[in-house]
Amino acid sequence: MSLWKNLSKDFNCVHEPQLTGFSFSSNLLMTIFPHRIESRVTYAETDAMGIVYYANYLRWFEMGRMEFIRDLGIPYKKLEEEGIYLPVSEVFCKYLVSAKYDDILIIETSVDFMRRASIQFAYRILRKEDGTELVTGKTLHAFVDGEGKIVRIPPLLKERLKF
Amino acid sequence: MSLWKNLSKDFNCVHEPQLTGFSFSSNLLMTIFPHRIESRVTYAETDAMGIVYYANYLRWFEMGRMEFIRDLGIPYKKLEEEGIYLPVSEVFCKYLVSAKYDDILIIETSVDFMRRASIQFAYRILRKEDGTELVTGKTLHAFVDGEGKIVRIPPLLKERLKF
Amino acid sequence: MSLWKNLSKDFNCVHEPQLTGFSFSSNLLMTIFPHRIESRVTYAETDAMGIVYYANYLRWFEMGRMEFIRDLGIPYKKLEEEGIYLPVSEVFCKYLVSAKYDDILIIETSVDFMRRASIQFAYRILRKEDGTELVTGKTLHAFVDGEGKIVRIPPLLKERLKF
Amino acid sequence: MSLWKNLSKDFNCVHEPQLTGFSFSSNLLMTIFPHRIESRVTYAETDAMGIVYYANYLRWFEMGRMEFIRDLGIPYKKLEEEGIYLPVSEVFCKYLVSAKYDDILIIETSVDFMRRASIQFAYRILRKEDGTELVTGKTLHAFVDGEGKIVRIPPLLKERLKF
Repeated sequence: MSLWKNLSKDFNCVHEPQLTGFSFSSNLLMTIFPHRIESRVTYAETDAMGIVYYANYLRWFEMGRMEFIRDLGIPYKKLEEEGIYLPVSEVFCKYLVSAKYDDILIIETSVDFMRRASIQFAYRILRKEDGTELVTGKTLHAFVDGEGKIVRIPPLLKERLKF
Repeated sequence: MSLWKNLSKDFNCVHEPQLTGFSFSSNLLMTIFPHRIESRVTYAETDAMGIVYYANYLRWFEMGRMEFIRDLGIPYKKLEEEGIYLPVSEVFCKYLVSAKYDDILIIETSVDFMRRASIQFAYRILRKEDGTELVTGKTLHAFVDGEGKIVRIPPLLKERLKF
Repeated sequence: MSLWKNLSKDFNCVHEPQLTGFSFSSNLLMTIFPHRIESRVTYAETDAMGIVYYANYLRWFEMGRMEFIRDLGIPYKKLEEEGIYLPVSEVFCKYLVSAKYDDILIIETSVDFMRRASIQFAYRILRKEDGTELVTGKTLHAFVDGEGKIVRIPPLLKERLKF
Repeated sequence: MSLWKNLSKDFNCVHEPQLTGFSFSSNLLMTIFPHRIESRVTYAETDAMGIVYYANYLRWFEMGRMEFIRDLGIPYKKLEEEGIYLPVSEVFCKYLVSAKYDDILIIETSVDFMRRASIQFAYRILRKEDGTELVTGKTLHAFVDGEGKIVRIPPLLKERLKF
């Protein structure tokens, strides 16, 4: 649909086939099978249009990537204790269908790519009841130390994502 | 910097010269001088990294575009009363420097383009104290009626943006 | 401790023995055993002091009472579909120990009392790791219809809470 | 109205005459004329009931007290730089009439009392258009140092509030 063209031209959206399974290519370190968590929409997250406020999906992206790396055995809190931080440098989000109060959401997270000092996550948020795709998105992160200086990806994380 | 390349390839960021002044071209209906508002960072908007949580910039984008169209004489509430809504279809946000507690922010909003049934806003958030650019972003919106059906841009809004 | 005296004088805090078990008295319809859910603290919920922002506990109170009545077989969404709403008329919250990023919280919800057209919930938020009590609180609600007129407590809810 | 009786019994609500002007009594150090700021309701702050979500009023309380002490010449950030923090120990909030999208709110803040190591603020939130009182509330705070140890109220703040 031409409406989205301008903002999404160069995105291979996370829900496209090649990203939900395993794939290997020269410029992608790897793409792993999506990690899934669930979360139910509360009143706090809705707005006066009766739907979820657009900024709140970014909170579910946070939940998705944090639980993802926790399940790889590397809770973000541990990274921080070693002086490694993963601030967001960019975010893209595409709103397809609105989530509503009390919906159970499935948040799928996968890794688009890792570079020496950065990682890109891709997200897909689905309505659990009928599998409708509501939102897709991406976040790009740099690995930095306590002073904000860019550092290499921690070896353990690199190892765990290479399978 | 190559870090951002992947997500921002096709964005002409709002802070580039041609977008902060007037410009006319075939595929841009118009780009108007940025509209400015200010907002001070509260504790509520910060997170445990000591900086503003990444989703909260989207709330300032909302403030920016709402005050912008209000100053054009078309408060969003009036649009809604006429059965016209402007949900967000896409958002892109690039984080350059972190805003901190008690910073006064300048939120600049301009219009990238209008089409028959859509509009794209561009944003730039600056630290007032020293003019540092903190965040840039874009939001794409469709004009819809109460049933979510796409409708044409309201003539008055089109008129006001064409100067 | 005298610090709290002013605000909490007339509260029988939810964590006091008589409220965490069953108790019957003339002005209490009933107090039921606390209902429990868990939630993990995300970055979004913290602030620049490195702890959870004080307003966010009210969101966990919402989660607590909504899951509580859902588990009684009366999801709030169903109540709304029947034209019954339960807005908050008052809230009280006492902050004992700060929750931190990545903590798993236990949210305990119980009913202090029901009256003809109102209900009061009591909450206790604990750190799961060591059982430390972090926050206690209460919310008072009126049953109203779509026009905001006060209505009687729905018979089914009354029935389910009377055991 | 008997509905509120239980939670507010021992509150002298901030909107009662003696609290909006000057008054002196033995257990009140002082009550000063309310400080006023304005804030417009955004979509972000509303919920699917079409009204402001109940936790968000606590953010306006924060804004109110922070601007209040800034106008006394003591920005909170300065206090922090001197190692003094003012976490919230208790909050009470009473919801009278709902704020709606695009309403301009007036947030009135005054000081109920100061003690050696604590301070209590009182708030009143009004709809600017017609002066309707929407919400009243109170927050109790302890002065603590960086380790969370209770400290005396800073002399300058004490001085400024004693007029």
